[in-house]
Amino acid sequence: MRVTFCCTDTKAQPWLEGLKAALPGAEIEGWKPGAPAADYAVVWAPPQQFLDEQKQLKGIFNIGAGVDALTKLRLPAGVPLVRLDDAGMSVQMAEYVCHAVIRHFREFDAYEADVAAGKWSYRKPSTRSDFPVGVMGLGVLGTRVAQALRQFDFPVQGWSRSAKTVAGVQCFSGDAGFQDFLSATRILVCLLPLTPDTENIMRRDTLQKLRPGGYVVNVARGGHLVDEDLIALIDSGHLAGATLDVFRTEPLPPAHPFWNHSKITLTPHTSARTLRDESIAQIAGKIRALSSGTPFASLAGLVDLKKGY
Amino acid sequence: MRVTFCCTDTKAQPWLEGLKAALPGAEIEGWKPGAPAADYAVVWAPPQQFLDEQKQLKGIFNIGAGVDALTKLRLPAGVPLVRLDDAGMSVQMAEYVCHAVIRHFREFDAYEADVAAGKWSYRKPSTRSDFPVGVMGLGVLGTRVAQALRQFDFPVQGWSRSAKTVAGVQCFSGDAGFQDFLSATRILVCLLPLTPDTENIMRRDTLQKLRPGGYVVNVARGGHLVDEDLIALIDSGHLAGATLDVFRTEPLPPAHPFWNHSKITLTPHTSARTLRDESIAQIAGKIRALSSGTPFASLAGLVDLKKGY
Repeated sequence: MRVTFCCTDTKAQPWLEGLKAALPGAEIEGWKPGAPAADYAVVWAPPQQFLDEQKQLKGIFNIGAGVDALTKLRLPAGVPLVRLDDAGMSVQMAEYVCHAVIRHFREFDAYEADVAAGKWSYRKPSTRSDFPVGVMGLGVLGTRVAQALRQFDFPVQGWSRSAKTVAGVQCFSGDAGFQDFLSATRILVCLLPLTPDTENIMRRDTLQKLRPGGYVVNVARGGHLVDEDLIALIDSGHLAGATLDVFRTEPLPPAHPFWNHSKITLTPHTSARTLRDESIAQIAGKIRALSSGTPFASLAGLVDLKKGY
Repeated sequence: MRVTFCCTDTKAQPWLEGLKAALPGAEIEGWKPGAPAADYAVVWAPPQQFLDEQKQLKGIFNIGAGVDALTKLRLPAGVPLVRLDDAGMSVQMAEYVCHAVIRHFREFDAYEADVAAGKWSYRKPSTRSDFPVGVMGLGVLGTRVAQALRQFDFPVQGWSRSAKTVAGVQCFSGDAGFQDFLSATRILVCLLPLTPDTENIMRRDTLQKLRPGGYVVNVARGGHLVDEDLIALIDSGHLAGATLDVFRTEPLPPAHPFWNHSKITLTPHTSARTLRDESIAQIAGKIRALSSGTPFASLAGLVDLKKGY
């Protein structure tokens, strides 16, 4: 068995070593143009040339939860695509989102500014029931985030394409439920996959539906958010601010207005990092399962290309 | 029935109105020197004169979880003392501590500084198993904090005076367990009551036992921590830093070195604020229970004066 590794923004060596250790019988190689045909590919944001050349793939494993960097390419017909299924990401997402929500709710930025100015300040505590959090996307990541927020007694609602049930979370679904979900939400958390249906989902007319003092936490993809609409709604006072980890262009271009906006907190796509050891263990485990006859259909993380995630 | 209210740092009027609404049959009055004898007192940090004058109290209700401002006074013999039992505090503590722990573990301060300097930075993710969190004090607040931290998959251990059991938390107790608790801990969270036994519990010789890169979160009382020892151990590199909400003198004096220390985050005693409505409801409920014959011994929050909490 031959496994090829093609990842545009990561040092290949540790991944190759890890995959070799986890799949001792296999030939594991970093992809170069003209490389021999492999059985399985482990990829992140490969070039179109990679897919065009590798004609004998039985399956493609994506190092990440979101497959939008793959689905925007011409994919080889009939080759199953498998994304990471948690692999240490959901706990990082829960951390990142809870930190952002608590920091906003508890005004820790304002306290920090007061302290920097030498002020021992008093701020009236906000009321938890005035800060309902709405999580868009209730897959592995969104579900864990929603449950983590419930630990802090926030009212939490969720929205997903198809109807779901999450304990303690009021669930809305589909187009029919979207307006009610938005108007019940003050802090909006985006954990959706990026597909043609969800692109630009956070734009003026949707963000305007949030409760006054709305706040946006985007940990999905930059393409979900219309940047100018967010800034306009913050500057007009309808939204209180945002915490953003993902952007249309990454790294965020130096001239982008997000960099210096006082009400926007940004981080460099660090909310849930691919953890190499966990990811290698998961992918190698799936390859071993396939080798012993397990069908793709029973693998967690198999992408439904019609849905796009 | 007469209830007297004596609270040195809060506007009395809303408390008096709330107590009147919750106890319609009772006379509720703010205390002044020479006021008539009351049956019950609702207090925060009253002067000694208050206790010396009020000779007929059947019980004293403390507006707060910690009773150290009372136990340092000469208390009337035989009068039960009842502290707040949660009343909305444990969720605030869980928020505050999880925010501080996540912020340190995920290096969000450093990311923020990078962003302020216009840098899109990469930082190698830390490993969760290298950041065991130790919670000192496993009462209502400490238990909730420990459980909230477990949600984020941190290894969590607890230490308390007497042996306790908390699901998912390795529990140590008493003097015998203290050294093992410290040496297994990297992030130390203090939620102890302040008593002669726990005063100065965080000092050079105890903080030195923490794992390298140790970090201190103090949300209990300033008297638990020897300020100079903390600063010396941070400056020598043994400790990575601290998040402090409580101080020996509050407001923290302007000349105190904590104000400008780059590795110390401080907040103005805001980790868990007394929530007026919840507190009034709880205290009034206990007074009603007492009036209908419930004994003090069955009230949650009854203070054991021998233990001091």
